[in-house]
Amino acid sequence: MKKVDCIVAAPHFLTMEGEGVGYRAQHAMAIDCGKIVGMAPRDAIFKDYRADRVIDNAARVVLPGFIDAHMHTGEAVLRGLAQDTGHWMMYGLGPFEEQLTPEDRVAGAQLAMLEAVRAGTTTFSEFSRRPDHLCDIFRRAGVRANFTVTIREAVDRIYAPGELYDFDPSLGEKSLATCLDLFHRYHETENGRFTVMFGPQAADFVSEKLLLSVKAAAVAAGTKIHMHVQQGDRETYQLVKRCGLRPIAYLDRIGYLDEQLVAVHLTDADDAEAALVAQRGAAMVVCSGSIGIIDGIVPPVKAFQEAGGLAALGSDQAPGNNNHNIFNEMKLTALFNKIRSRDPETMPAWKVLRMATIEGASVLGLDHKIGSLAEGKQADFISVDLAAPTMMPVYDQPMRNIVPNLVYSARGNEVRLVAVDGHIIFEDGQFHTLDENAIIAVNQQAADTLGRKAQAEFQRIDGTNARFMREEKL
Amino acid sequence: MKKVDCIVAAPHFLTMEGEGVGYRAQHAMAIDCGKIVGMAPRDAIFKDYRADRVIDNAARVVLPGFIDAHMHTGEAVLRGLAQDTGHWMMYGLGPFEEQLTPEDRVAGAQLAMLEAVRAGTTTFSEFSRRPDHLCDIFRRAGVRANFTVTIREAVDRIYAPGELYDFDPSLGEKSLATCLDLFHRYHETENGRFTVMFGPQAADFVSEKLLLSVKAAAVAAGTKIHMHVQQGDRETYQLVKRCGLRPIAYLDRIGYLDEQLVAVHLTDADDAEAALVAQRGAAMVVCSGSIGIIDGIVPPVKAFQEAGGLAALGSDQAPGNNNHNIFNEMKLTALFNKIRSRDPETMPAWKVLRMATIEGASVLGLDHKIGSLAEGKQADFISVDLAAPTMMPVYDQPMRNIVPNLVYSARGNEVRLVAVDGHIIFEDGQFHTLDENAIIAVNQQAADTLGRKAQAEFQRIDGTNARFMREEKL
Repeated sequence: MKKVDCIVAAPHFLTMEGEGVGYRAQHAMAIDCGKIVGMAPRDAIFKDYRADRVIDNAARVVLPGFIDAHMHTGEAVLRGLAQDTGHWMMYGLGPFEEQLTPEDRVAGAQLAMLEAVRAGTTTFSEFSRRPDHLCDIFRRAGVRANFTVTIREAVDRIYAPGELYDFDPSLGEKSLATCLDLFHRYHETENGRFTVMFGPQAADFVSEKLLLSVKAAAVAAGTKIHMHVQQGDRETYQLVKRCGLRPIAYLDRIGYLDEQLVAVHLTDADDAEAALVAQRGAAMVVCSGSIGIIDGIVPPVKAFQEAGGLAALGSDQAPGNNNHNIFNEMKLTALFNKIRSRDPETMPAWKVLRMATIEGASVLGLDHKIGSLAEGKQADFISVDLAAPTMMPVYDQPMRNIVPNLVYSARGNEVRLVAVDGHIIFEDGQFHTLDENAIIAVNQQAADTLGRKAQAEFQRIDGTNARFMREEKL
Repeated sequence: MKKVDCIVAAPHFLTMEGEGVGYRAQHAMAIDCGKIVGMAPRDAIFKDYRADRVIDNAARVVLPGFIDAHMHTGEAVLRGLAQDTGHWMMYGLGPFEEQLTPEDRVAGAQLAMLEAVRAGTTTFSEFSRRPDHLCDIFRRAGVRANFTVTIREAVDRIYAPGELYDFDPSLGEKSLATCLDLFHRYHETENGRFTVMFGPQAADFVSEKLLLSVKAAAVAAGTKIHMHVQQGDRETYQLVKRCGLRPIAYLDRIGYLDEQLVAVHLTDADDAEAALVAQRGAAMVVCSGSIGIIDGIVPPVKAFQEAGGLAALGSDQAPGNNNHNIFNEMKLTALFNKIRSRDPETMPAWKVLRMATIEGASVLGLDHKIGSLAEGKQADFISVDLAAPTMMPVYDQPMRNIVPNLVYSARGNEVRLVAVDGHIIFEDGQFHTLDENAIIAVNQQAADTLGRKAQAEFQRIDGTNARFMREEKL
């Protein structure tokens, strides 16, 4: 009998192994030094292993922790300030985002973690200009994190309609240097929980010369390129004006569409363009909630998958999406795509659950470590309460309803336990690694200051939400 | 100083009075004998009233309880069994629904209540063949309920494609008699918490003669007609074949489109048909989650509202929608309509919050009693935790983000207190009127039996979900 750190037993496991959800009844999982060392029927595990900590509950389903493949966590301090408005970036987010300090972003990232971990997220793929400011809090939280530094060469200023962006090569060089520095300091650190990717903001914000430098650097480093791709008509306009090609065609011409690319959004891509990205071997992240609110658009993820592409889910940011909750993304991705194709069989529950777990892991190049529950993988897992009203009743036969209920019914608060590398970070409503009250307090303090600082610009812009305030609609 | 039963004070009230959300800062509400007797700045209320029970919390927003205007609560015992399948009614729900006993439906209705009350629903508009079986549990739960008996004349049997339904006048007479009986026994009972409407299932299931009898009976009784209208292509086909008119045109011809009608779904209606229903003065219930999953369709509620119509939200049933949660309906209704119109300004947060409260009350003819917080109205209200991560941080200026966060961020579990007629029925995770553990247990027992009984028919039909079971996708 071998001594291990922990044994997790449950009536239902969704291992996500194989082509479906890898369902196993009455199994148990032995965990040692952060790894899954045994996954077998419970009797076999309890015969072969013993542990001081045994987690065993008759009303739980255990599955891999969720992978949120595209987040700007720092913006959670601006939750709820930019919905229901056209030109979201300029008229909605603009007055507030320009006031954000690095400290505000640290507060926001912690708030995003509170929300996301409560709802079962264990892997955070953070995309921002200075993710190095956030590494320490991700480390202390004990979550798995993938960091991408925004590489951008276009000068930040207001451009007239139709005007091409100005490029300042020194900005590009500086952001690439930040990216390389982060890579060398953090990639594959924290027992491998931290990884780093390279992140051109989008094709319109970076010159071709710099794009090719980033590509060469990523090849040399052996890591992926995480990039917004054809994310809106503004990007398309810039590329067409600059070189006569739409962004995806342009990226194809310069050799960017390959297995190394994680292409985010594809908001302005048609089905054929999405299929081309998939056929070239690139992966996709679909941010259904965010793009639904910001643009009223359902990205072509179905066409992307039908062309053989692997797609992950992302929550993007709270002032757009308003949530960092992968249950929300699973349901919205399933429903939005049924609506886009006017077909209730489109994007079934098991498919979006795979996108949130094993396929998400593959998109980030982490499927050798996480994404399913199997011997040799890291023990990133969650346990969900099947006695919660939203998960009740449980049918085993003739059809099992656990997966449809996880996707279409669960709200996130059914998650009872969250573990990363075998360490429990959240259990029965309590965080082991985050001080919830302190995080709430610091976010409220930040908001009180940010509101005051944003006032003048908010009034000057006088957008939809300013009108709603006058009309007593907020 | 007047003694009252209860005073509720909060930093934020959304009274839903006026054209917007009726926001009031630092107000309080005096409640006596189930009614709101005072609503004013907190100092004024505490000067004029005293109460043994004072509910006062610095991190709450208080608003009217939600109105779920169309539910088949008994089917919650079949949660998660019919998603992701074409021909939902026949291939998804069919094998299970035909096994439901009256006792199963009572269990399911209680499960639906657990879920809905936790998420702030105080008014349940139940539509089923024998809602009289459910009246007792709605009474004991202490919620507000509106009952509609399904009136149906078409014989229940499998029809060949293209075949017109058979009508059996005795079925119609019997269901109308049940409806009249229910009306006389329950309408305006329980301190007015119970009301009864008349419910032809849909134009295709009832003969013109019976439709006209129902109309006359509803006029005589002075109550509304609650009816599925143009809910799918099957209904449209039957009507066109029967009389050469699509359902809405047919209902217009026979005088059904007026202020008395609560028209549910309009799934198969185009914008012009929806506008006609609105122009005739009828109300609408939109069930976004349910119709999204079952049909992959966004009903034309925007066109309906633009033509001046009042619309409410409905959760329909759990084996379709999978949720009885008005937070879910608010978010989906906002997002689906942004997508349908490809416009992020469509269906803003304050609009769907009105649909869930004051406009929902108007649709059901209950706005003289509920739907807003004002002197003289019944005290149906909820309190939501603003210190929950999903509601944080709170901005007061230059823009208030409480309403966007309620609609786009809250999941339902932020509700801390639910009161109907001034009686608290749910508080801090505990039900005062429902035995949660007993309800969970009886639903699981029902499911174990239902699963066995449905097995043969599930295998015989061999639909999408049977294939998913074989492929280990469930």
